[in-house]
Amino acid sequence: MKPKQNTSHLTHKHTIRVRFSEVDSLQIVWHGHYIKYFEEGREAFGRTFGLSYLDVKKEGYATPIVNTNTSHKLPLRYGDIANIETTYINTAAAKLQFSYCIKNEVGNIICTGETTQVFTNLENGEMALYLPEFYKDWKTKHALLDV
Amino acid sequence: MKPKQNTSHLTHKHTIRVRFSEVDSLQIVWHGHYIKYFEEGREAFGRTFGLSYLDVKKEGYATPIVNTNTSHKLPLRYGDIANIETTYINTAAAKLQFSYCIKNEVGNIICTGETTQVFTNLENGEMALYLPEFYKDWKTKHALLDV
Amino acid sequence: MKPKQNTSHLTHKHTIRVRFSEVDSLQIVWHGHYIKYFEEGREAFGRTFGLSYLDVKKEGYATPIVNTNTSHKLPLRYGDIANIETTYINTAAAKLQFSYCIKNEVGNIICTGETTQVFTNLENGEMALYLPEFYKDWKTKHALLDV
Amino acid sequence: MKPKQNTSHLTHKHTIRVRFSEVDSLQIVWHGHYIKYFEEGREAFGRTFGLSYLDVKKEGYATPIVNTNTSHKLPLRYGDIANIETTYINTAAAKLQFSYCIKNEVGNIICTGETTQVFTNLENGEMALYLPEFYKDWKTKHALLDV
Repeated sequence: MKPKQNTSHLTHKHTIRVRFSEVDSLQIVWHGHYIKYFEEGREAFGRTFGLSYLDVKKEGYATPIVNTNTSHKLPLRYGDIANIETTYINTAAAKLQFSYCIKNEVGNIICTGETTQVFTNLENGEMALYLPEFYKDWKTKHALLDV
Repeated sequence: MKPKQNTSHLTHKHTIRVRFSEVDSLQIVWHGHYIKYFEEGREAFGRTFGLSYLDVKKEGYATPIVNTNTSHKLPLRYGDIANIETTYINTAAAKLQFSYCIKNEVGNIICTGETTQVFTNLENGEMALYLPEFYKDWKTKHALLDV
Repeated sequence: MKPKQNTSHLTHKHTIRVRFSEVDSLQIVWHGHYIKYFEEGREAFGRTFGLSYLDVKKEGYATPIVNTNTSHKLPLRYGDIANIETTYINTAAAKLQFSYCIKNEVGNIICTGETTQVFTNLENGEMALYLPEFYKDWKTKHALLDV
Repeated sequence: MKPKQNTSHLTHKHTIRVRFSEVDSLQIVWHGHYIKYFEEGREAFGRTFGLSYLDVKKEGYATPIVNTNTSHKLPLRYGDIANIETTYINTAAAKLQFSYCIKNEVGNIICTGETTQVFTNLENGEMALYLPEFYKDWKTKHALLDV
């Protein structure tokens, strides 16, 4: 029996520069901004692989976040360049799962985390219990459907 | 000939506490957050006088900001309490103008500024060239219509 | 043998009102802002029980966040009032752990989560491996030290 | 008598992409975020011409904002690309003045504005009444000193 795969070959790297307004009075990036960095990485992934907020909206769906977690290893400071690696986590459920790994310029891990999104119908606001057709097609195209 | 009045008796005081995430690496409130404080003051004014975002939306209008200015006198620090005085500026145009004066707990002026908003129709997005009816009624109720 | 307690009697309720700038294009509070709400709840807890950022700073320590997680059940909309219940989680480690439960005005759960903080020395930036003296005193005062 | 020049040849173009968290419930960039865009443009200018926050800090100064103004012509929406043109405004005073012009991809003006900064000594927090030496040197280097 083949186990359900949990990781995927779909990953994307996006580079950011820390903005002045993101640094707190301890002179490090305020922890809440990492959620924004994750989103920036996820949307850069989405634009590359056709699964961005705007792509999904065109199909009549929104993908609200239902879970996030972050793990902070090292701080970022003003002016730092960082790379966000966003990886698609394959799951059989009607969900979008991503893991994130933010590294500084020399490759040290700064922050890791995960997010989970569900699909809601833009017309009635209801949560999709099954994979929307367009998402099934997307998974097929990327060889991510469970066999 | 009577000159058009520019100030009004309509003013409202709203108290805020500086949040940790609003303070920058110089240990003072980042200047851009004052625009948010102005909005918080303006909406508190709006809830009191029936002219908030939600009140105006019910009438079929949005009131996008077209101009802002801020003048920074003294800094605020984490944990500081501040008072936002929001004053309605009366004008004959189809606009909403407010002036703001943020003071610290001992009454020193921290920041002053102004904002100007126009009315746009929520259905077609068009800017109102004349006072919307509901706004005329509001001005009449508050004795602000030019005689 | 007495098990280590994980919950505590120390809890605090803080009320917030959703700000216009916190609502995203889906007309709900953007998920990243809940980290800010958690912080607002935690700092209100800290001011009540003497463990705020400023209290801890006076003792020569900062308490950077090392972990966060959020679980989103229902959305908040512009103008909504919400209550943040912040509860101190007792642990033997040199850490600060809090759980959060945000409810709307009628008591529905909107968002839950947890944060973990460590103690770092403000002079040398090093992480405290043992409970700082002031924190031991604080725990003793609140009957939270393991017996 | 030669009049004091007010504009300069020093200008810099920086490209941004609107982030999801920057768009409000009217589906346009929330007006307060333009202050952040201005700062992003100003810091990109600063990195190019040697006048960034970090450059100035190395010289022992901070440059807090004392005035801002914004004028909003057209909205930006999620996913839009925009260009920030930041231009140094030459003045004889111990100040930094910049003007900004944000345009969308097809060249329409979205938002214009100005900011004014003063120099404060990082050691004692006092405002510089005369041009700091390093700033005089910078102006000389860029042929901006009044003759």
